[in-house]
Amino acid sequence: MNLTWKQAFLLGGLFLFQKISMEIIPASAQMKQWSRRCKAQGKSIGLVPTMGYLHEGHLSLIRRCRAATDSVVVSIFVNPTQFGPGEDLDRYPRDEEGDLRKCRELGTDAVFMPDASQIYGPNHQTYVEVGPVAEPLCGATRPGHFRGVATVVLKLFNIVLPDRAYFGSKDYQQLQVIKTMVRDFDLDVDVVACQTVREQDGLAMSSRNAYLSPEERNEALCLYKALTRARALFAAGETNGDNYLKAMREIISREPNAEIDYVSLVDPESLQDLEKVDSRALAALAVRVGRTRLIDNMLLE
Amino acid sequence: MNLTWKQAFLLGGLFLFQKISMEIIPASAQMKQWSRRCKAQGKSIGLVPTMGYLHEGHLSLIRRCRAATDSVVVSIFVNPTQFGPGEDLDRYPRDEEGDLRKCRELGTDAVFMPDASQIYGPNHQTYVEVGPVAEPLCGATRPGHFRGVATVVLKLFNIVLPDRAYFGSKDYQQLQVIKTMVRDFDLDVDVVACQTVREQDGLAMSSRNAYLSPEERNEALCLYKALTRARALFAAGETNGDNYLKAMREIISREPNAEIDYVSLVDPESLQDLEKVDSRALAALAVRVGRTRLIDNMLLE
Repeated sequence: MNLTWKQAFLLGGLFLFQKISMEIIPASAQMKQWSRRCKAQGKSIGLVPTMGYLHEGHLSLIRRCRAATDSVVVSIFVNPTQFGPGEDLDRYPRDEEGDLRKCRELGTDAVFMPDASQIYGPNHQTYVEVGPVAEPLCGATRPGHFRGVATVVLKLFNIVLPDRAYFGSKDYQQLQVIKTMVRDFDLDVDVVACQTVREQDGLAMSSRNAYLSPEERNEALCLYKALTRARALFAAGETNGDNYLKAMREIISREPNAEIDYVSLVDPESLQDLEKVDSRALAALAVRVGRTRLIDNMLLE
Repeated sequence: MNLTWKQAFLLGGLFLFQKISMEIIPASAQMKQWSRRCKAQGKSIGLVPTMGYLHEGHLSLIRRCRAATDSVVVSIFVNPTQFGPGEDLDRYPRDEEGDLRKCRELGTDAVFMPDASQIYGPNHQTYVEVGPVAEPLCGATRPGHFRGVATVVLKLFNIVLPDRAYFGSKDYQQLQVIKTMVRDFDLDVDVVACQTVREQDGLAMSSRNAYLSPEERNEALCLYKALTRARALFAAGETNGDNYLKAMREIISREPNAEIDYVSLVDPESLQDLEKVDSRALAALAVRVGRTRLIDNMLLE
């Protein structure tokens, strides 16, 4: 390609403008207007809902969204209703400036960054009541968590009007809860499940990894090791669910600071415990490493 | 106006075609398509959600909707999730043919008539959890009722995509529950409250009036009489809430087959009991006349 200096300058300017022109939207009403304008222009909208402190996992969602939709919206909102008492709402890591830079670099069109009062008015009282899919796994140890997740996601859908929304598979149960809500409430959003992104040694990316001391960071690898062990058993044709659980528990028990919240082998759709492994299973676990609760899962098929 | 025979014939044909061209839509997917087509053509959509057995109250909603929107959708669905055990789901009156004729006569564009399996799939598990606004009055004696109402209305909104939805004020608490949901879930639907339509003697129109024997029909007038008494007290400047309740109860107690479910004087927004009447109040009651539970209310302002 041969460009004159003038052409190159114009192209560079256009590129720069596109990078700069990302809108940062703090208010729901303004976000609705922005989305309605996109719709009126016949543009598709993709939403990547996040709680900020963006890592490579989030960025992979934004890239995938960028490739598939006209308008990319990233929401950054640490949603209070999905945290229980004594959980880490107050110390959840934040990096507004870094998040906006990353969003801009990936060509995000709008970042929706409301504060809690924008999302929950003073007399807010209506919630999404989630069903059996939200009961096992994290639902059992974090009561109310998925009610909060589903409520905020429904609200984000109604504010942003996405054609597609992108979620990571590390939060596998969250994905199932949202898919179930979309089906049960007749929502017109295509829920796109994206692969878990891992560090080089296998640790699933998570904003909460920032809490880990170097020693804990090392011990945290036991989640991935346990899942890898489950995968090996599956490849070897193991059918007894208990043997998976024992093997995974054994690996985690080796770490002095790791405490099991749950270790489960479940049906990938219903999330009900599997005693006998047939063609498909999901190995899922939540482990507290020091003060930090980490989750991970692996689909066996 | 002077028309030739040909012009008159064409006009008549057009009129007839319009009457005939009402669509009857049994499936959610088909309804969604129809609504999306309207939207794509830039047409506004109005929804009148009903459980059928249409009376003059419903018809007033349809007329008001017809006057304000391009496309009028009436939904007819006896929603099982809003009936409690032992309530009248099985004997709720139905008149499909009469309903369709009335809708057609009023220029309805589409009637959405799903059966229960269209609305609640085999594994349906997500509901709308309603808050304090749903607790007093009918919420206290019909547990789960407003959860069912809010869930089906949310689903209807997502299927039909109305710009406006029309509800009668006889079901005053239902209206408040839906307004609250629309606010809390950021829905873009204008909820239009329409006046209660009454029989000549004052009885509020209701599909359930069909249950009443001639004698019960006569006794049923006690609801309106009690409300009228409350209105007279308000006009006379009565401020003590208890005096309203006593007066209304007294009128209802005169009827041998009338049994009070509740008689209340509440704040018209929060629906919380009012001990002292200031500038506004809602008198609301539910009375069982024979086997038939009737409700009515009157805004005092």
